Amino acid sequence: MTIKVAVAGASGYAGGEILRLILGHPSYLSGDLEIGALTAGSSAGTPVADLMPHLPQLADRIIEDTTVEVLSGHDVVFLALPHGHSAAIGKALEDTVVIDCAADFRLQEAEEWEHYYGSAHQGTWPYGIPEMPGHREQLQGARRIAVPGCFPTGATLAALPAVAGGLIVPDLAIVSITGVSGAGKKASVGLLGSEVMGNLKAYNTAGRHRHTPEVIQNLSEVTDEEVTVSFTPVLAPLPRGILTTITAPLKEGVTQDAAYETYRAFYAEETFVHLLPAGQQPQTQNVLGSNMCHVQVEVDERAGVLLLTSAIDNLTKGTGGAAVQCMNLALGIDEAAGLPQAAVAP
Amino acid sequence: MTIKVAVAGASGYAGGEILRLILGHPSYLSGDLEIGALTAGSSAGTPVADLMPHLPQLADRIIEDTTVEVLSGHDVVFLALPHGHSAAIGKALEDTVVIDCAADFRLQEAEEWEHYYGSAHQGTWPYGIPEMPGHREQLQGARRIAVPGCFPTGATLAALPAVAGGLIVPDLAIVSITGVSGAGKKASVGLLGSEVMGNLKAYNTAGRHRHTPEVIQNLSEVTDEEVTVSFTPVLAPLPRGILTTITAPLKEGVTQDAAYETYRAFYAEETFVHLLPAGQQPQTQNVLGSNMCHVQVEVDERAGVLLLTSAIDNLTKGTGGAAVQCMNLALGIDEAAGLPQAAVAP
Amino acid sequence: MTIKVAVAGASGYAGGEILRLILGHPSYLSGDLEIGALTAGSSAGTPVADLMPHLPQLADRIIEDTTVEVLSGHDVVFLALPHGHSAAIGKALEDTVVIDCAADFRLQEAEEWEHYYGSAHQGTWPYGIPEMPGHREQLQGARRIAVPGCFPTGATLAALPAVAGGLIVPDLAIVSITGVSGAGKKASVGLLGSEVMGNLKAYNTAGRHRHTPEVIQNLSEVTDEEVTVSFTPVLAPLPRGILTTITAPLKEGVTQDAAYETYRAFYAEETFVHLLPAGQQPQTQNVLGSNMCHVQVEVDERAGVLLLTSAIDNLTKGTGGAAVQCMNLALGIDEAAGLPQAAVAP
Amino acid sequence: MTIKVAVAGASGYAGGEILRLILGHPSYLSGDLEIGALTAGSSAGTPVADLMPHLPQLADRIIEDTTVEVLSGHDVVFLALPHGHSAAIGKALEDTVVIDCAADFRLQEAEEWEHYYGSAHQGTWPYGIPEMPGHREQLQGARRIAVPGCFPTGATLAALPAVAGGLIVPDLAIVSITGVSGAGKKASVGLLGSEVMGNLKAYNTAGRHRHTPEVIQNLSEVTDEEVTVSFTPVLAPLPRGILTTITAPLKEGVTQDAAYETYRAFYAEETFVHLLPAGQQPQTQNVLGSNMCHVQVEVDERAGVLLLTSAIDNLTKGTGGAAVQCMNLALGIDEAAGLPQAAVAP
Repeated sequence: MTIKVAVAGASGYAGGEILRLILGHPSYLSGDLEIGALTAGSSAGTPVADLMPHLPQLADRIIEDTTVEVLSGHDVVFLALPHGHSAAIGKALEDTVVIDCAADFRLQEAEEWEHYYGSAHQGTWPYGIPEMPGHREQLQGARRIAVPGCFPTGATLAALPAVAGGLIVPDLAIVSITGVSGAGKKASVGLLGSEVMGNLKAYNTAGRHRHTPEVIQNLSEVTDEEVTVSFTPVLAPLPRGILTTITAPLKEGVTQDAAYETYRAFYAEETFVHLLPAGQQPQTQNVLGSNMCHVQVEVDERAGVLLLTSAIDNLTKGTGGAAVQCMNLALGIDEAAGLPQAAVAP
Repeated sequence: MTIKVAVAGASGYAGGEILRLILGHPSYLSGDLEIGALTAGSSAGTPVADLMPHLPQLADRIIEDTTVEVLSGHDVVFLALPHGHSAAIGKALEDTVVIDCAADFRLQEAEEWEHYYGSAHQGTWPYGIPEMPGHREQLQGARRIAVPGCFPTGATLAALPAVAGGLIVPDLAIVSITGVSGAGKKASVGLLGSEVMGNLKAYNTAGRHRHTPEVIQNLSEVTDEEVTVSFTPVLAPLPRGILTTITAPLKEGVTQDAAYETYRAFYAEETFVHLLPAGQQPQTQNVLGSNMCHVQVEVDERAGVLLLTSAIDNLTKGTGGAAVQCMNLALGIDEAAGLPQAAVAP
Repeated sequence: MTIKVAVAGASGYAGGEILRLILGHPSYLSGDLEIGALTAGSSAGTPVADLMPHLPQLADRIIEDTTVEVLSGHDVVFLALPHGHSAAIGKALEDTVVIDCAADFRLQEAEEWEHYYGSAHQGTWPYGIPEMPGHREQLQGARRIAVPGCFPTGATLAALPAVAGGLIVPDLAIVSITGVSGAGKKASVGLLGSEVMGNLKAYNTAGRHRHTPEVIQNLSEVTDEEVTVSFTPVLAPLPRGILTTITAPLKEGVTQDAAYETYRAFYAEETFVHLLPAGQQPQTQNVLGSNMCHVQVEVDERAGVLLLTSAIDNLTKGTGGAAVQCMNLALGIDEAAGLPQAAVAP
Repeated sequence: MTIKVAVAGASGYAGGEILRLILGHPSYLSGDLEIGALTAGSSAGTPVADLMPHLPQLADRIIEDTTVEVLSGHDVVFLALPHGHSAAIGKALEDTVVIDCAADFRLQEAEEWEHYYGSAHQGTWPYGIPEMPGHREQLQGARRIAVPGCFPTGATLAALPAVAGGLIVPDLAIVSITGVSGAGKKASVGLLGSEVMGNLKAYNTAGRHRHTPEVIQNLSEVTDEEVTVSFTPVLAPLPRGILTTITAPLKEGVTQDAAYETYRAFYAEETFVHLLPAGQQPQTQNVLGSNMCHVQVEVDERAGVLLLTSAIDNLTKGTGGAAVQCMNLALGIDEAAGLPQAAVAP
């Protein structure tokens, strides 16, 4: 039987990336999976040709309204909507696999949600980083999935083995440098090409960024120690990509070899996390358009810290690729299906 | 039986792009096609991990020397070498499908070759733009193929229906704006990031660019009139993409509707040429990493000219994608296999 | 007596550029010129610190409303407003030197204005390209000045000697590739960093761009032949800079040497037009932040055309620098005062 | 009497920036300062027109060999040479003010020098950050000056008040994101436009970068506590600019207001350090081409750290502007002469 997939919020960057990946997915190419409704808010009624000319196969499709009626009758619904819409849609689509790219169901603690998002907490869904211990199992066959934020994905995959393996005191100084597509496809003076090209700026600094509690939550799952995070996101002049650098105090006696081996072992079976050869640093261009996370770990003896770095494409492993990876797990098909490992470099 | 493919010049941008596409090719994924020798010049002996970290599946492979011994025993050999090496290799690999990304066998006239390349002409191989009348047939089952230059691909696909359809006097003013990967992966002060970002410059102007005679040759195939081309390549600050703009004197009585219909009809059956809705201009970001050529045609009545525009990814439809498309034709498999139509946008 | 200068529309890119130049102007540094009112529309009431952090000397200034009351009492008023506001302000400020960066008073023919701008023609003011024959004299001591459009500046300076000198048949194919600041500081999805980086696209093609009649008007001043212009503007991923390439049919007998000498002689006395050594093409990075226009001329014998190229910074020589150059002429001070010739490269 | 200035290494980015600033220096414009010899290594004999077309005023100058003979007879010699050449030239030019942009005379401890540079230590010259306590006095009238590294300038100015004021435990996690011109104008595959655009990568991580000991040395001047620095430089796709982010453990009881006031007071008299309004983060575009350092300080209570950020143009305040600021101090002229405070934004 053909699986029918809808995308709500199809005209944004996350929606477009999900569609790009689905169009290359072997289940789509073999006819086992079909693309149903594509919905949006203000763009409803517009042909895909006008909104996403990079998807010529869908050029003649018309964007529909994001309503429960339009979305029902699908086997899988991807939500690529702003925060706050997921609960209502999720409730209405009982028999559907709902994969939510918004933040609504990511956080476990209601207090954290309310502090950072300023509205009532709606609950928690299985959290879509299959590479976190225990998560793959939760995602297999799940009918509700919360796709992680782009920054938490890069930071979590960079730090997880070090925190789980007790290589560091988990007081992390995280600087994540991001391309501008992470800010979405909404008109804004601060995101104009003139303002971002030739420019670097930190924003939502000093604990204000909403992804901070998500990182703390993820890392706290693998340690009993208290995790603290100083998070500094930086906007850089590229469309896609997040480079995350993390330093934390090295625990006594941890050597470079031991740290590297911890990482090697932790990710040995993972298709989408690639530990680089020792001494080679991740580069965002090497994950462009791919679902990979490249990582590296380095002891800085003189400073007494461990340096953890990762590179992801914020729209692929950081959003749309993670969503498709989660769909594969939910549907019980090959987890890696339709997800490029090779990047569009240079 | 498994098809065995080698890439000579694997460490450059064209070689890397061919490999990226092969790694996603359904024949590779099903095991019907395997990647054999990867060769290069000065990089021989280096692991792929060091040279092309964007291809993690090949990380452990070692680049070998480009020799006939290493390349023989393959069913398909892609040559992504500088000009001047193809003839010798081609002669030695009798039973192999040789797909040459260099210019060596593109031009028909020895005099043109000698004028532009300064060496003896080696001959002409079937020319790899399947969308040119008669070329698909030549490429099907071919054992020698000359992959076109990136600029000629964009210019030819933009102008072909207008020239063939007699919409214009074929005196073309072509301005092709290109990303910098077209210049290859060779250290050079003029191509440093500092020199190309924030910068625009024309180069090899006034008939000096080697792709000029190739464009003239292609367009002359579809008209009896003499074709003249003024070609101005411009280097722009992006890694990939060529936007080509062409103007030529409009023939009397040609209307916008007739011109658009000529283009629609000409490319109606083509998978990789996409005529945009009337009024929408091609954008290079909408073909990034895809094998598509987006085109548009517009009558400028007041100026009395026809404006033809196209966008391609110089490394995909402009080189590596064209090479794989030609391989598919040569091997008799689905022409579109492994070639993305959706682009990595934004 | 101190000259008092106001800028209306100070918070936009043109206004900011005028202020940057004034802050480095010797008359300002010596105290002979002071900066009075800075006005805007919706930003009125905001400190400059919030809107233009690149001008720290003015950080504490507050943007005022754009009204005749606020602007009166100044010796010079720069208008950096959208089209349509200049006539009313101009009428009200009788004794003031008004330098208008909008299009309102650029065109001589009412019909052209109405066709391209869709409103009633308000008249024509002295046109601020001092390098055009006769214009410097009109600008000296003028009380009303229309600053030219950025594209017309680049195209006019590139083509003027060729048209005036009869080197070409004046049927020009102009392609002008521009940085995105030319589109102004207004929120728009199409100008988001994500949409412009890694992207090239033509827009307002086939005679639709409003700068087309301005170029025709300028070039028609120096020839009796009918001038036709096919104008193709292209948006490229850089903040500032316009590279203009022009081809036109070469008149018989014109040699490379004669063409170059025509250009050399035409601009021999001009401070802000720099003919590059023969064979060297203009680059926008070499005029970044400077008031220069770099030009080159090349015969393409085989194609039978003349290639004319120029590079300007659209915000400096293309707008704010031209405005200050005009102010200098209007006030009778050194035309070059405060206008950098050296660029911020790389 | 006219001051005669030479630049050794004039064809590189630092040399070009010094010349750009000198050409706009009031002493140059008034004729009190003239530009003498311009020298380089392999470019000797080449006209400036070919090497630095952005300096049209010097187009006809010919680059000379870097020899003591050529450099002698000048009042000021700027050395913009690779490390290792300064000592010999410095010894030979006894009566000249020598301003060295290389690292040779920056470090005080021979052991640090030898560890990081692998050659014998040549000594220490007055260190050119006038904003460091006591340094302005050393620089006034100095005949030998070591211009600081670009990263140390950004990091030192960001951290100095916090370290001096005891706001933090001086264990600093520094991430400095830089444009590519910092790597110089030398052909290299890793710095090709194709490799840096669309890319982010850390390099010389984990204590390996040579600027690490320079930062430690600077900050140790203002505290008795031991300073440790984890330094992570990141290459980003822009030509110029360094954004530095620093976190360090907050000392107990330090409030946001107290931290901000410490910074305000520390830099109250400084022309070239601009503390932004509270809550506004530095952006590199706002210092492009200017000699400014924009700084900000923020308490992150939950993480228990202080966040310090700064933006500079690596070629201006980071090299060439610092060199000219030092020249002004050495010659006893206005420290700010010829040094822009307004930036070329956007």
